[in-house]
Amino acid sequence: MSHISIIDDEVDIVVGALQPDLSSFMEEWKPIFSRFHLIIVKDPDLKEDLKIPDGFNMDLYTKSDIDRVMGSSSTAISFSGYSCRYFGYLMSRKKYVICFDDDCVPARDSNGCIIDAVSQHIANLATPATPFFFNTLYDPYREGTDFVRGYPFSLRNGVDCGLSCGLWLNLADYDAPTQVLKPDLRNVRYVDAVLTVPSRTMMPVSGINIGVNTELVGPAMLPAFQLVKEGKIRWETVEDIWSGMCVKVVCDHLRLGVKSGLPYVWRKERGDAIESLRKEWDGVKLMEDVVPFFQSVRLSKEAVTAEDCVAEIAASVKEKLGPVNPVFARAADTMVEWTKIWKRVRRPSKVQRQ
Amino acid sequence: MSHISIIDDEVDIVVGALQPDLSSFMEEWKPIFSRFHLIIVKDPDLKEDLKIPDGFNMDLYTKSDIDRVMGSSSTAISFSGYSCRYFGYLMSRKKYVICFDDDCVPARDSNGCIIDAVSQHIANLATPATPFFFNTLYDPYREGTDFVRGYPFSLRNGVDCGLSCGLWLNLADYDAPTQVLKPDLRNVRYVDAVLTVPSRTMMPVSGINIGVNTELVGPAMLPAFQLVKEGKIRWETVEDIWSGMCVKVVCDHLRLGVKSGLPYVWRKERGDAIESLRKEWDGVKLMEDVVPFFQSVRLSKEAVTAEDCVAEIAASVKEKLGPVNPVFARAADTMVEWTKIWKRVRRPSKVQRQ
Repeated sequence: MSHISIIDDEVDIVVGALQPDLSSFMEEWKPIFSRFHLIIVKDPDLKEDLKIPDGFNMDLYTKSDIDRVMGSSSTAISFSGYSCRYFGYLMSRKKYVICFDDDCVPARDSNGCIIDAVSQHIANLATPATPFFFNTLYDPYREGTDFVRGYPFSLRNGVDCGLSCGLWLNLADYDAPTQVLKPDLRNVRYVDAVLTVPSRTMMPVSGINIGVNTELVGPAMLPAFQLVKEGKIRWETVEDIWSGMCVKVVCDHLRLGVKSGLPYVWRKERGDAIESLRKEWDGVKLMEDVVPFFQSVRLSKEAVTAEDCVAEIAASVKEKLGPVNPVFARAADTMVEWTKIWKRVRRPSKVQRQ
Repeated sequence: MSHISIIDDEVDIVVGALQPDLSSFMEEWKPIFSRFHLIIVKDPDLKEDLKIPDGFNMDLYTKSDIDRVMGSSSTAISFSGYSCRYFGYLMSRKKYVICFDDDCVPARDSNGCIIDAVSQHIANLATPATPFFFNTLYDPYREGTDFVRGYPFSLRNGVDCGLSCGLWLNLADYDAPTQVLKPDLRNVRYVDAVLTVPSRTMMPVSGINIGVNTELVGPAMLPAFQLVKEGKIRWETVEDIWSGMCVKVVCDHLRLGVKSGLPYVWRKERGDAIESLRKEWDGVKLMEDVVPFFQSVRLSKEAVTAEDCVAEIAASVKEKLGPVNPVFARAADTMVEWTKIWKRVRRPSKVQRQ
């Protein structure tokens, strides 16, 4: 991974702060984060002052920044809860954005050394992806491996990677019903692999631990799908699942790749699954409509950028899913608005940044 | 894996003998093979007598058995070299067939204990597959894991698994050019995972280490694609790649699954890659036509069994690939013939078996 040092300044780490005290989170990540620029976005619903240790190269954004940048243009978009991170994507000017939930710390290898999840995401994003044919030995670009017999040489150059999806040890990313049924289930198995999720295969992207090439797919990472009673616990949300399927459809259409596997982070305990179940089942139910939709949506050849693709997906959401549930119509409106804001704010000449 | 003992008598281990002395191969596998019935098929080109140790429950088939069973009906099918194993598939009456190349021995875990590759294949075949949506934590049926957040509940029952593709430590299954370019490359990474290869994703199935549910996809495992100058070294063959793509297309059409990953076997050194390169590049070149063909072939709704599917694939091969190279027309003829022989021989009432 000799290329890593070259692109340190092309990376922003984005963290959405849903809890006020980030001290232990930041200290545990310090050996890794200290090389990079950080963007921390405070959940606009969070009242307490943030507690963040010194010694980081960072920008902090709060509700007042969000209000100022969005101005009166924002009618549909909410940056509440886990969605606050998307404001960080908007503010970043870097090619790569790496994002971790604030209840995750670096995982450790069998020697107790912390695993550099940022470098792994960058390696995933900076090396090609292979979405058009499955390599049984996983990532063929990893040192010590290659394409297996039968892999067409014409496909061995691969394509650019748009999204890197990392995993979690300890508390896995299950939904509330699974958490309730298996309260003691912990993910202890470290699978030492990265693979490209094949083209036209949909997947549930978790936002807990991801890396994004914002130049390729940035506008498709969006806070569009918010449940009416969305909470502040991961398993009460589906914004990242929706956003991930948008990115996957965009990548499939633009012939880009999505990788899954390494790096792992260590996910701490947070939340009460039984309490969540009492509150909300909508996310689980809605997936029965969401998945078939994204599996079948097809974009026109006129869609040549991520913005174009998001606009077409939004139109299709409105038409196909809109009548099913008002949450889908709202998502479609938000997607359209997001592409406009992305163009206005993300364009360097129009940056309004403190 | 408590179900394993129940289905020991539903399993045949099939080995194609390309070398005369199977002593060390059999001894190394003895702790695992001793529970099962074995079918050993001697490469009809092999002149020397086979050396096989006592103490196994096995049937041995040689050229005379092949000639007797095939009779005058066989004009196109050759069981030469690695293809001899397919005669074993034909002779088996069991639901599951597990097949290993004769230059592979059990891999060992970090404690030096041998890994039971047969039990792992059976576990892969006997538990459901999930081809319609990707689970980021790999096999959701494995103990200690589950479906992740966002996975639709309507897809959590999975579907039957038709094929289990294992992997290899030490000498990996690379093609001759890769072997020549990277002669010291060895696969040392043990990836502790099984995954379902998604529907409509093609893959290069290696025949080195596989498990098959013959009731579901048996007729699609066929010795159809044989190079004009095919040798006796794995990287000089593509029969298994072709056969694997047939099975994958059949599974996709019949809504069955194909799994890849565990178990590993330890693959010993055999052959001289530079010598192979001098002899034959055809296999590598032909993949450029083979892969797009299998990626695009679609079967009719009238195809409801593996036999039906193979017949339709064969017709399409003849039409689309036949004009490209005579090897494809021959493959199509062989596939048609194979389905007829499968019906005749595999039907228990017509078994001609010593």
